[in-house]
Amino acid sequence: MEQKLILYSYWRSSASFRVRMALELKKLDFEIRPVHLLRDGGQQFAPDYQKLNAQQLVPTLVHGDLVLGQSLAIIEYLDEAFPHTPLLPESAAGRAWARMLAQVIACDVHPLNNLRVLGYLVEELGASESDRLAWYRRWSDRGLASVERLLRQRRRQTPFCHGEEPGLADCCLLPQVYNARRFDCRLEKFECILGICARLEALKPVQAAAPENQADAE
Amino acid sequence: MEQKLILYSYWRSSASFRVRMALELKKLDFEIRPVHLLRDGGQQFAPDYQKLNAQQLVPTLVHGDLVLGQSLAIIEYLDEAFPHTPLLPESAAGRAWARMLAQVIACDVHPLNNLRVLGYLVEELGASESDRLAWYRRWSDRGLASVERLLRQRRRQTPFCHGEEPGLADCCLLPQVYNARRFDCRLEKFECILGICARLEALKPVQAAAPENQADAE
Repeated sequence: MEQKLILYSYWRSSASFRVRMALELKKLDFEIRPVHLLRDGGQQFAPDYQKLNAQQLVPTLVHGDLVLGQSLAIIEYLDEAFPHTPLLPESAAGRAWARMLAQVIACDVHPLNNLRVLGYLVEELGASESDRLAWYRRWSDRGLASVERLLRQRRRQTPFCHGEEPGLADCCLLPQVYNARRFDCRLEKFECILGICARLEALKPVQAAAPENQADAE
Repeated sequence: MEQKLILYSYWRSSASFRVRMALELKKLDFEIRPVHLLRDGGQQFAPDYQKLNAQQLVPTLVHGDLVLGQSLAIIEYLDEAFPHTPLLPESAAGRAWARMLAQVIACDVHPLNNLRVLGYLVEELGASESDRLAWYRRWSDRGLASVERLLRQRRRQTPFCHGEEPGLADCCLLPQVYNARRFDCRLEKFECILGICARLEALKPVQAAAPENQADAE
């Protein structure tokens, strides 16, 4: 496949960060098209963008005819279409475990704490700033505590979530921790998580994917 | 693999329903162990259950040494460990599309509307019954509208979400619609979705997985 990979991304979006990490870790060539989630009332709501992403969310990956939303679906696609530097383990049990860990974050933490949900709490339910922060921290803390428990249960301790090299769950974990830091969540009890994140942040491909290093960063 | 499949499930849990559908569609032999999410202050919080599921959520699949949470990870595991009657398409692009559709529901609708989140709205944020219903319907409606748009964009219309036979996304769609009906959401505009659900509900394996047909149904 020689078509160029195009990623619609917002620098601070946690789901975009996941996919950027996957693309960089797999050393794939890709072009970023920024979608500003706040400017112009949210560029994700523009009719042209909605044609690409039915949910009006970032990220979106375009690869030839394929137009794809949902960060985990995108990462698994990249891993299947470009099998070098795999982000998932080989065995069915190993893959299952990696997906479970990724989904604890992608299903049960992040969707509760994204922009549209925090906005609804304030605008529709009249939540105060402290309510909003407590909400954020509740789900962040619950989710990361589950991830920490799962990491400690691993039969074999590895430098990254599920192996000697970073993979699918790492692409979810670091962006979630990045977000948790923005919201001043207390993280010191999550020793396994912090160790993995420190190892990830030392890697050049991960640095290239980080929010502050994006062309659209503010 | 001859170890028995054991599923910890609650009859009305939407994520448990997804996995029951996958097990029945694949004609796998399995044993259900009910976990009552309300009784005894929530049986998912019992220490013995937490050893199996770090998130204290259902479902959990046990297969030999493997103990697995997260419904989508479980379904993909079943599809890899028991390749007959596949629930995912063959091509990378087809699989990506199926996963995206499943994740629109499993990541961006269901986690916002599950028991623990609805409970938090009422108990911590003082949401009224009508706030709670409006919250439920908002995310249900947004998510199903995205699914409907995606289904209409399919290059080839098929009887189920992504093929001639039911698959991964169907296992997510029907339980979500079942839930939406419980909350009296207006669904008549979702013609593609309702067509697919009617075809699913006519199938014996799907009927066997339905909440009202579980041994622990009330």
